[in-house]
Amino acid sequence: MNPRVEEMTSFMVMDVLERANEMQRQGIDVIHLEVGEPDFDVPDVVNKAVKSALDNHLTHYTHSLGDPELRSEIASLYKREYNVDVDKDQIVVTTGSSPAILFVMMLLCKVGSEVILSNPGYACYKNFVIGAQGTPVFVPLDSANGFQYNIVDIRCRITPKTAAIFINSPMNPTGTILSDSFMKEVAQLGVPVISDEIYHGLVYEGKAHSILEYTDNAFVLNGFSKRFAMTGLRLGYLIAPKRYMPALQKMQQNFLICASSTAQQAGMAALRDNSDYTANMLNTYNERRKYMLTRLRSMGFGIPTDPQGAFYIFADARQYTSDSLKFAFDVLENAHVGITPGVDFGTNGQGFVRFSYANSIERIKEGLDRIENYLKSRA
Amino acid sequence: MNPRVEEMTSFMVMDVLERANEMQRQGIDVIHLEVGEPDFDVPDVVNKAVKSALDNHLTHYTHSLGDPELRSEIASLYKREYNVDVDKDQIVVTTGSSPAILFVMMLLCKVGSEVILSNPGYACYKNFVIGAQGTPVFVPLDSANGFQYNIVDIRCRITPKTAAIFINSPMNPTGTILSDSFMKEVAQLGVPVISDEIYHGLVYEGKAHSILEYTDNAFVLNGFSKRFAMTGLRLGYLIAPKRYMPALQKMQQNFLICASSTAQQAGMAALRDNSDYTANMLNTYNERRKYMLTRLRSMGFGIPTDPQGAFYIFADARQYTSDSLKFAFDVLENAHVGITPGVDFGTNGQGFVRFSYANSIERIKEGLDRIENYLKSRA
Repeated sequence: MNPRVEEMTSFMVMDVLERANEMQRQGIDVIHLEVGEPDFDVPDVVNKAVKSALDNHLTHYTHSLGDPELRSEIASLYKREYNVDVDKDQIVVTTGSSPAILFVMMLLCKVGSEVILSNPGYACYKNFVIGAQGTPVFVPLDSANGFQYNIVDIRCRITPKTAAIFINSPMNPTGTILSDSFMKEVAQLGVPVISDEIYHGLVYEGKAHSILEYTDNAFVLNGFSKRFAMTGLRLGYLIAPKRYMPALQKMQQNFLICASSTAQQAGMAALRDNSDYTANMLNTYNERRKYMLTRLRSMGFGIPTDPQGAFYIFADARQYTSDSLKFAFDVLENAHVGITPGVDFGTNGQGFVRFSYANSIERIKEGLDRIENYLKSRA
Repeated sequence: MNPRVEEMTSFMVMDVLERANEMQRQGIDVIHLEVGEPDFDVPDVVNKAVKSALDNHLTHYTHSLGDPELRSEIASLYKREYNVDVDKDQIVVTTGSSPAILFVMMLLCKVGSEVILSNPGYACYKNFVIGAQGTPVFVPLDSANGFQYNIVDIRCRITPKTAAIFINSPMNPTGTILSDSFMKEVAQLGVPVISDEIYHGLVYEGKAHSILEYTDNAFVLNGFSKRFAMTGLRLGYLIAPKRYMPALQKMQQNFLICASSTAQQAGMAALRDNSDYTANMLNTYNERRKYMLTRLRSMGFGIPTDPQGAFYIFADARQYTSDSLKFAFDVLENAHVGITPGVDFGTNGQGFVRFSYANSIERIKEGLDRIENYLKSRA
């Protein structure tokens, strides 16, 4: 077996989720505050578009890069939201954004390449790097300053082997939005930036910037899972500098062929939708965010800075534990609430836990009540 | 850029297809005999299952390995068709079988690993090997004996670096079915066998065997694209030895998350379907196969052995050309028929062209008429 695969870590949130599901099958009512998945239904237009795709027999391969109309709609989104010009031929539509991350890593890394990542950060990034024979190089983030990347900490880690720098804003697990000034600086380091913009559209305070506002030497990851609650439909995309497109198209043709034809029709419909779907979803998330922040702080969790985007609160649980994995499983087994251990996001996440508010306010309240009671019972 | 990606070849059939589509946009009527895609609509039950999944809000992530019910249905298929016992926990459901091939290659190859492939063979195999930092080692197949793999030619290429042997039966591009005796022998070489069984179910003469009838030390690739014409829905799977499952699940969680929830419902419905869908499709393909064989032979193409499965005829065109890529584009530009250059499948395919009969008998007839007239006009 490839030793690099053995080096990859398993995705702890999935371990929590799978144990939670096992408990549910045993009849236990588990409240899910662990999963990074919207609890909303897809927009009506998505539902209709998939059905109409089926009725019109659009069940065959599409253009390998994705339906040209869908790619034009994605380009329009970036024009509308960030006033940047993206050519549809710079876009690769993939089955969720995960394979897009894999393709970028395989594209940029050779054996021994270094890729700069934040610690904490999305648990899978490092595994993509390892899978592509690269080496993750971590930049520690400080909770005291809201887990903002520090440009000096990045710059001093750049070597001739650095293949790329990952950024993610709003960030998983912290909900942090990277500042305009940071974005400017990271764009000028002369290293390709990989900007994971999957949580764009889920912003409650401030504005999330696209890396394309600052440089063309960048790769953008985005998709439909968070903004349109289309997780199960598996639709994402990559925007890349033009010079990489022949190589990326080759990878797509060989490794994926194309994204789902029906999901692509759904994506088009979602981007063209003029309903209040996203605005309503945002309002709902924001109410939950405020409620959860107040409750968690009153329960003794440390949250120095309010998260500004995504649907997570990354809370300091060191008052309760120094082992976030054990703590998450204790809470699951005793309080029947799923939460994500902070160590899943890196060593700097140890002692923290991630709460997702992608659940109804009633279930969030009930979940936090249960945790509060459990923690009191332990005291 | 990763030099291994530069080494990857582009997928010539896609180049032909994309040029053909460009011609169509210019108003030219092009007949597609190049694509490896069923021209059938999906079964009715698939259409219904996707719609019902949407109505039941099954638009969220599934178990990373795939819905357990779907995996049980796949296990039942293998029991029913080959009398082999597959545990549902040996199955990973993927977005088409292509990412499954990538995962197997990333799993088994380290830098410099060798993977044994046939020449000719499916064009993408070698690129998966290269993408996973391995080295393809080719075994030449002889058209005179129906492009059968010779076990001696494989055995003498095994070295301590050999990570796997690819087999594909019925085979793309030749339609060859590997014999029972060959399957027995390849299973005993002590090297993991990767058996691409995507064309199982499309067999007109003889029987296609699963590698699992002969050994457990094997990886099976299969999916829904060919058997149920579900190309656009992107649903495939991998069956792997149990000891590799933790690593594969890790790869799946990180790199793909899960396959489409709606496509998985469709897959379940397709496997449970008792209609005559597959039987009817098979009869139709078989009529076309016979017609095309007669016509191509009468036109001077060499086809020493009748293809037994899949929906391709791999024909010797050396009477007309020594450069199959140029020939395919000449035919496309002049006769307005898309065919696949044999060299796409390896150096041993040079001088051959692949005709697909995944098109209506009327269009096949018209396409062959056009080619016949074009060849006469050149003479």
